[in-house]
Amino acid sequence: MSSLSSSPHCRSYSSAAYPISSSCNYGHHRTAISSISLKQLLPRKVSVQSNTKARPNVVPSEDGAVVAPIENETPSNKLGDGLLSITLPEEFEDTTSFDINKDKSTVSITVVGASGDLAKKKIFPALFALYYEDCLPEHFTIFGYARSKMTDAELRNMISRTLTCRIDKRANCDEKMDQFLNRCFYHSGQYDSQNNFAELDKKLKEHEGGRISNRLFYLSIPPNIFTAAVRCASLSASSANGWTRVIVEKPFGRDSESSAALTNALKQYLEEDQIFRIDHYLGKELVENLSVLRFSNLIFEPLWSRQYIRSVQLIFSEDFGTEGREGIFLSLKYFDNYGIIRDIMQNHLLQILALFAMETPVSLDGEDIRNEKVKVLRSMRPLQLEDVVIGQYKSHTKGGVSYPGYTDDKTVPKDSLTPTFAAASLFIDNARWDGVPFLMKAGKALHTKRAEIRVQFRHVPGNLYNRNFGTDLDQATNELVIRVQPDEAIYLTINNKVPGLGMRLDRSNLNLLYAARYSKEIPDAYERLLLDAVEGERRLFIRSDELASAWALFTPVLKELEEKKIIPEYYPYGSRGPVGAYYLAARHNVRWGDLGLEQ
Amino acid sequence: MSSLSSSPHCRSYSSAAYPISSSCNYGHHRTAISSISLKQLLPRKVSVQSNTKARPNVVPSEDGAVVAPIENETPSNKLGDGLLSITLPEEFEDTTSFDINKDKSTVSITVVGASGDLAKKKIFPALFALYYEDCLPEHFTIFGYARSKMTDAELRNMISRTLTCRIDKRANCDEKMDQFLNRCFYHSGQYDSQNNFAELDKKLKEHEGGRISNRLFYLSIPPNIFTAAVRCASLSASSANGWTRVIVEKPFGRDSESSAALTNALKQYLEEDQIFRIDHYLGKELVENLSVLRFSNLIFEPLWSRQYIRSVQLIFSEDFGTEGREGIFLSLKYFDNYGIIRDIMQNHLLQILALFAMETPVSLDGEDIRNEKVKVLRSMRPLQLEDVVIGQYKSHTKGGVSYPGYTDDKTVPKDSLTPTFAAASLFIDNARWDGVPFLMKAGKALHTKRAEIRVQFRHVPGNLYNRNFGTDLDQATNELVIRVQPDEAIYLTINNKVPGLGMRLDRSNLNLLYAARYSKEIPDAYERLLLDAVEGERRLFIRSDELASAWALFTPVLKELEEKKIIPEYYPYGSRGPVGAYYLAARHNVRWGDLGLEQ
Repeated sequence: MSSLSSSPHCRSYSSAAYPISSSCNYGHHRTAISSISLKQLLPRKVSVQSNTKARPNVVPSEDGAVVAPIENETPSNKLGDGLLSITLPEEFEDTTSFDINKDKSTVSITVVGASGDLAKKKIFPALFALYYEDCLPEHFTIFGYARSKMTDAELRNMISRTLTCRIDKRANCDEKMDQFLNRCFYHSGQYDSQNNFAELDKKLKEHEGGRISNRLFYLSIPPNIFTAAVRCASLSASSANGWTRVIVEKPFGRDSESSAALTNALKQYLEEDQIFRIDHYLGKELVENLSVLRFSNLIFEPLWSRQYIRSVQLIFSEDFGTEGREGIFLSLKYFDNYGIIRDIMQNHLLQILALFAMETPVSLDGEDIRNEKVKVLRSMRPLQLEDVVIGQYKSHTKGGVSYPGYTDDKTVPKDSLTPTFAAASLFIDNARWDGVPFLMKAGKALHTKRAEIRVQFRHVPGNLYNRNFGTDLDQATNELVIRVQPDEAIYLTINNKVPGLGMRLDRSNLNLLYAARYSKEIPDAYERLLLDAVEGERRLFIRSDELASAWALFTPVLKELEEKKIIPEYYPYGSRGPVGAYYLAARHNVRWGDLGLEQ
Repeated sequence: MSSLSSSPHCRSYSSAAYPISSSCNYGHHRTAISSISLKQLLPRKVSVQSNTKARPNVVPSEDGAVVAPIENETPSNKLGDGLLSITLPEEFEDTTSFDINKDKSTVSITVVGASGDLAKKKIFPALFALYYEDCLPEHFTIFGYARSKMTDAELRNMISRTLTCRIDKRANCDEKMDQFLNRCFYHSGQYDSQNNFAELDKKLKEHEGGRISNRLFYLSIPPNIFTAAVRCASLSASSANGWTRVIVEKPFGRDSESSAALTNALKQYLEEDQIFRIDHYLGKELVENLSVLRFSNLIFEPLWSRQYIRSVQLIFSEDFGTEGREGIFLSLKYFDNYGIIRDIMQNHLLQILALFAMETPVSLDGEDIRNEKVKVLRSMRPLQLEDVVIGQYKSHTKGGVSYPGYTDDKTVPKDSLTPTFAAASLFIDNARWDGVPFLMKAGKALHTKRAEIRVQFRHVPGNLYNRNFGTDLDQATNELVIRVQPDEAIYLTINNKVPGLGMRLDRSNLNLLYAARYSKEIPDAYERLLLDAVEGERRLFIRSDELASAWALFTPVLKELEEKKIIPEYYPYGSRGPVGAYYLAARHNVRWGDLGLEQ
C-alpha cells in the first residue's frame, strides 16, 4: 500500500493552531479560519502504519492487480477528537517516515485518447496546473496513449500548445512547463489491443523503477470502446503492487439498460472502488461549496426543507448552439443521439440536486456522501411525460447576424427531434422534500450563459408587510442563489426597507461575489477531480448504484419521448427558450428565478 | 378633526399596481417592489368621512383642547383585504374632497428653545428638509420660541446658517430656503409664563386664519423646565379645534421616581396620545428596517430565538469624548449628572433591544408595536451590579497628540465617578429568549465610532466541518450584523469554502452596503420623527408605560452604583475600553463581535 507523498502538501494543512510550511501553492491566502481536515490527515497516519506493518489490508482484485483500501476510506469517525489533536503536532514533524515512503511509490497517469480534444483542452492543462502547484506526487509519469503515431517530442509539442490555460502569467512558468513536459511520454496503440497495452506496461515499469506502482488511466475515448480499453488496461497494464484506477467520462450509457451493460462490462475487470466516473460539474467550486454552506452554517440547515423552501431550481443555459462544436461532442452525432436531457440533466443537474437535497451524511467520507445521494435518487419519482418540456432551437436573425438552427448543421439529420432544451419538474417523496418541486432547465442557444441553483423560499405566513409589496407577493419571497458559473457568487435576496421617510420595501441582495472576495483563480473542475482520483477521494465521483438510480428516473420518459416521436417546441436562437417551460413552472405555482424582470 | 393634506404625498403611495404621481421626492426611485401601506392609506379614508359627518370622535382633553383620535390609530385590521383593494383606485382619484380638506387645516410647529444647539443643528434643518421634499402640509407655520429677544429676521438669519445640511446641493435649494424661512417666525417669552404663551397663541391664530388648527410643540429645553413649559403651552396655546402634540426630548428623568414624577406632571396637562417622547435612535434608517428585515423575510424569523441565537449585542461607541461638547450636552453638568448608562443604554440601546426581541405584533400600528415592546421590557430581569461594568476614560497621548481624560474638563468635578463607558448583560425571561445574553456596550472616547446590532448564532450541532475550523469554533459561528451608523449596512457572516483544491473554510460576508445599493441620501432621524409627530404616527415614540418599564430595569443598579460609589475602570482615550467588558462577555461564554481580529 502506498501513500502519495506529495498530496498532503497539496491539500490544505496549514492552520493557525499548527502552522506548517507547504510547498503547494493552493489555499494559503486570505484565510481567517484555517483548516485541518481529518480526512486530509488520515493518509499520512495510515501510511506510517503501513510502513511498519505487513499491510494486511491489501486485497487482490479480480484482474490480479493489488488494490489497497484507500486511505481516505478509513472511516474518519473511528478516530476520536482527542486522539487526533494530540497526535497531530508530532505527525507533522515526523517527516522521516514520510520521506522514506515518498521514495517508494510512484504514480503513472495514462491519458487514453491523448490526441482528443478533451485531453488537449482539459486533461493535460489540469495535470500541468497540479504539477505547477506541487500537487502531484514527487515521482510521477504521464503517458499519452492513442492510435496515431507520434514521438514523445511530438506529444510534448502538442500538449505545450494548450498548457498555458491559467498558469502562464505566473513566475517560472516556462521552466516548470519544461520540467512537466519532460515527464510526459507517448505510446501508440490500439484501444482494444492487449499487446499494445502490454508494451505500455513495460514502459511504465521502466519509469517506475521498482517503486510501488500506482496507475491511473483516464479514458478520454468514445463510449463504444470503453470496455475494450478497460479490459486491455486491466489485463495487461495494471499495477502489480499498488493501485490501479480508471477515470471514465460520460456518456455512461444512454438509458438504464445500456448503462447497466457498461457497468457490468467494467466490473468484469474492475472493482467498484477502481472506477472513477467523472462528472465535471461536481468539481466546480460552488458545487463543492454547497455542502460547506449548508452543513457548516447554522443559518441554512433549519431552512432546508419543505417547511420553508417552496421550490429549488437547477438551471443550465448556454448562449451558443452546437455549431462548430464537433470537437467538443466528439461528433455531433454524439449529441444528436443523446440530446440535452442525457447530456446535462440526467447527470450534471441531477447530481447537484442530489447533493443539495441529501440528508446530513454521517461524515464527509466519500462513501457516506454517496450513500446519502443514492437515498435521494431512490426517493424520487421517475419522470412522466407531462413533467417534461422539450425544445429545439431554430435559426434566428438578430442585428443583421443570422444564427443557424440546430438542424441547419449538415451533420445533423434534417428531421432530428433531438432536444437542445429541456425543462423538467422532479419530486422527492421523502419527509424533508415532499411536495417541493425541483425544477430543472437546460438549454443551448439561449439568451444567456449560466449555471445556477436557485432556492426559492415560501411566503412569510401572516406577513405584516403584505401591503407594502403591491399585488405580487411572489416577487417578495426570499431567494438563495448559488451561481456556479460564470462569475461565481452566492447571494440571498431579502426584502429591505428603501431608505427614506416612507415605508417602501424592495428586494436587495446580500452578496458574496467570489471575484471581489477572493483574489485567487478558481481551479478548473478537472484539476480537482484528477487530484481526487490520484488521492483516491471518491466523494465527487459517481458510484454504480447512483448511476443506476439516476437512469431509472429518466429512462422511461426518454423512451417515451423517442417512441412517440414527441416534437420539440422550437425556439429562436438566443431567446429565453420554449414558452412551455413557463407553463411547466406555473403548473407547480412557481416562477423561474432566472427569468424575472430583474434578471 | 383634520387631515394633513400633504402628508399622503410624502409617504410612499406609488405602486406598480396603482401608480399615482406624487410631489414628494421621497421613495420613488429604485423600487422593484412598490408599496402601499394600509396605515398610510387610512388617513384619507377617515378624513373623507370626517368632512361628511359630525366628527363624533372628537373628545375634549383635560386642558380644554379638543383632541381628535388620530387617523393612524384606526385599527388597520378592521379593514379586510378586499375592501381596500376595491376602494383604493377611486380614492386616489377623489381629489376634490381632498382639496377642500386641505384648505381647512393648518399645522403650526413651535420649537420651544429655538436658540439652542439641538434646534439649530437638528430641528430646523429637519423641518427644512421635510419642506423641501414637500412632506409638510400645505398650510404650516413654524415658530421659534425662546427667552432671548430676537426679531423674525434674526431668527431666519440664525436658522439659515445651518439649513444647508443635506439639501444644499440640490436644485432650487435657495429658492426653497427663502420660501421656508418666510414661514418661520419668532416669539420671545419665558418658558414658565402663561402670558407669554397666550401671546404666542394669538400670533398662531393669526397665521392659522380660521382654519382647523393643529399644533405641535417641540420642547428643546432643559428637563427642569419641561413641566412648566408644558403647562403654559397646554393652558394658553393649545389648539381649540384640532390636535395639540408635544415632542419631549430626553432625559426623561434620571430614575424610576423622577421619571414617574415627570410623566405625572405631563399628564396633568396632556393625554398619553399627545405626548411624543423622542428617541432619535428609533428614527434611524436601519432601526426602522429591523422590523422589515425580520417580519418580511421568511429566512430570518425561524432563526429568531434561543434555539438558534447565542447572543445579541447592541453596541454604541464614539471615538471622541465629551471635550468641547458643552453645546450638545446643554452643559457637561448634564452628562456628569447622568452618565452613559442613562444617556445611551437605558433609552437608545434598550429601545433597539425591545424592537429586536419583541413578538410579532398584531399589526404595524403604533400601539400594537408598543404593546409588544412593553412586554419584552416587562419580561426582563432588572440589572444586578454584577451584570454591569463601568468605565471612565483617562487622558492618553498617541502620536504626539495628547487627548484629555474625562475629568480633565474644567466643568467636570475632579473626583467624578460618572461612567463614560458601560457594558451590561441583560436577559429576557420569556419562552423565546430564555438564557440568551443580550449584551450592551456604550462608550465615549473609544477606538472607533459605530452603532450596531450583532446577532451571534449558535454552533452548528454535529458540525461535519468542525475539523476545518481549527481550534476556535467560536470563530466559525454565523453572525448577522445590522450597522446603524456610520456606513449603514447589513451583512451576514457565513462559512465558506476558500476557492482552491483544498477544503479550507473561511468567514465571508453576504453583504448589503447601503451606499452601494441605494444612491439616495438617508434622511436624518429627526426628519422621520418630526414627520411622524405631524402625522400622529406614534410607532417610534416612547409610551409612558414603556418608559416606566425601562427605568425599572436600570434604576436599582444605577442607585447601587452611586450609593456604593463604585469606581469605574479607567481606560485610555481611544482604546477598546475597559478590559472588564471582555470578562463580562466571557462569563456568558460569548465574545464581543466588534472586537474580533477581523474588525
